[in-house]
Amino acid sequence: MQPFDVRREHLLKAAALAFAERGFHRTSMRDLSRASGMSLAGMYYYVKGKEDLLYQIQKACLEQVVAGAASAVAGGARPTERLAAFIRHHVTFFAVHMAEMKVLSHEAESLTGEAHEEVGGLKQRYVDLCLGLLADVEGRRSGARVDRHIAVHTLFGMMNWIHTWYDPNGPLGVGALSDAICRLFLNGFAPGTQLDCLEGER
Amino acid sequence: MQPFDVRREHLLKAAALAFAERGFHRTSMRDLSRASGMSLAGMYYYVKGKEDLLYQIQKACLEQVVAGAASAVAGGARPTERLAAFIRHHVTFFAVHMAEMKVLSHEAESLTGEAHEEVGGLKQRYVDLCLGLLADVEGRRSGARVDRHIAVHTLFGMMNWIHTWYDPNGPLGVGALSDAICRLFLNGFAPGTQLDCLEGER
Repeated sequence: MQPFDVRREHLLKAAALAFAERGFHRTSMRDLSRASGMSLAGMYYYVKGKEDLLYQIQKACLEQVVAGAASAVAGGARPTERLAAFIRHHVTFFAVHMAEMKVLSHEAESLTGEAHEEVGGLKQRYVDLCLGLLADVEGRRSGARVDRHIAVHTLFGMMNWIHTWYDPNGPLGVGALSDAICRLFLNGFAPGTQLDCLEGER
Repeated sequence: MQPFDVRREHLLKAAALAFAERGFHRTSMRDLSRASGMSLAGMYYYVKGKEDLLYQIQKACLEQVVAGAASAVAGGARPTERLAAFIRHHVTFFAVHMAEMKVLSHEAESLTGEAHEEVGGLKQRYVDLCLGLLADVEGRRSGARVDRHIAVHTLFGMMNWIHTWYDPNGPLGVGALSDAICRLFLNGFAPGTQLDCLEGER
C-alpha cells in the first residue's frame, strides 16, 4: 500500500470508530482530528469533508463485504453451502469491522444526493446476491414457504443486530456465533435441510 | 385520561417522532417545541428537559411492551403458542409504535446514570420473559440446539430490524409479517415443531 493509502485508511478507521461511538452528526472535524492524530488541514488532503468521510467509509466497507461474500460463496457446491458461506462471511466481517458496520446501518440516512444513491446501489447489489442464494436454496422445495423478501431482511436483522450485544473479544467465538445463526436461519427457511455445511458439524 | 396525561402523551409522541427522524442529539428543545406545538415553558411543565423526555419515552414504551407481552403469552396453552404470541405481540407493537421502538434501540446509549439503569432493568425483564419462553419451547427436545442467549438476541434482531425496511402502511400486513418471523424462528429454534399456532395456518 502506498503511504497515501495507509494514511487514508488510518483516517477512515479513526472516523468510523468516532462515528460509531458518538454518531455522525455529533462528531465534528475537530473531533476527528483529535481521534486520528491528524491536523485539520492534513485530513482535507484525504477527504473533502465530514460527509465525504462517511461516504468513503460506507463505500469501502460495502465494496469489501460484497467482494468478500462473492468469493466466499463461489466455493460452495450446494445452495445451502453457499448460503452458509455467505452468512459466515457476513458475521465474521461484521465482528472484525464492528464500527464500520454500525456506521453503515446507523447512518444510512446521513448521506445525501449522489453519495446516498451510490451507497444505496451497492447495498442493493449485496441484498440481491443474498436473494439469489435464497432462491437457490428454495429451489423446488415443497411445503409452506416464507416470502424471500421478508426472509432476506430478517436474515440481515439476525446478523446485523449483533452490534447491540456481541463482544468480539468475549468468550463466544465468531465461528460458534455464525454457526448458530446459520442453524437458526437454514432450519427456519429450509426446514429439514442438511446442516453438514456448518463448521461445528465437521 | 386526565388533560395533563393527554398533553404529556402528545408531547412524548411528538418527541419520539422527532428523535426517530433526526436523532436525539441533533434535536433541540426548540425543535421539540415546534414539533409538538407547545411552548418551551409549556414543555417544562411535563418534563425536566430533553434527557428526561427520552427517558419517559423509553420507559413508557418498555412498560407497555412488557405488560402487553405478559398478557399476550398468558393465553397460550403450549410453549410454542406462547412464544408465537410473544413474537406476534412484539412485531405488532413495533409496527404501531415504530418511532418509539426506533428510539429505544437507536438511543439506548443516550441515557445516563439512573435513567440508563432503570431502562436497562426494564429491558432485561423483557429479555428474561422471552428467555423463559425459549426454555419452555426447548423443554426436553433432543438434537442439536442453539444456545438460548444467542437465540434470544437473534430473535430480537429479526424483529427489531423491521424499522429499516418495513412500512406498516404498505401492502405487507403485520399479521403476515409476524407469521413469517414466527415460522422462521420456530422452525429454526425448534425444528419439526407444530406451526398451527400461526394465524395463517388457522
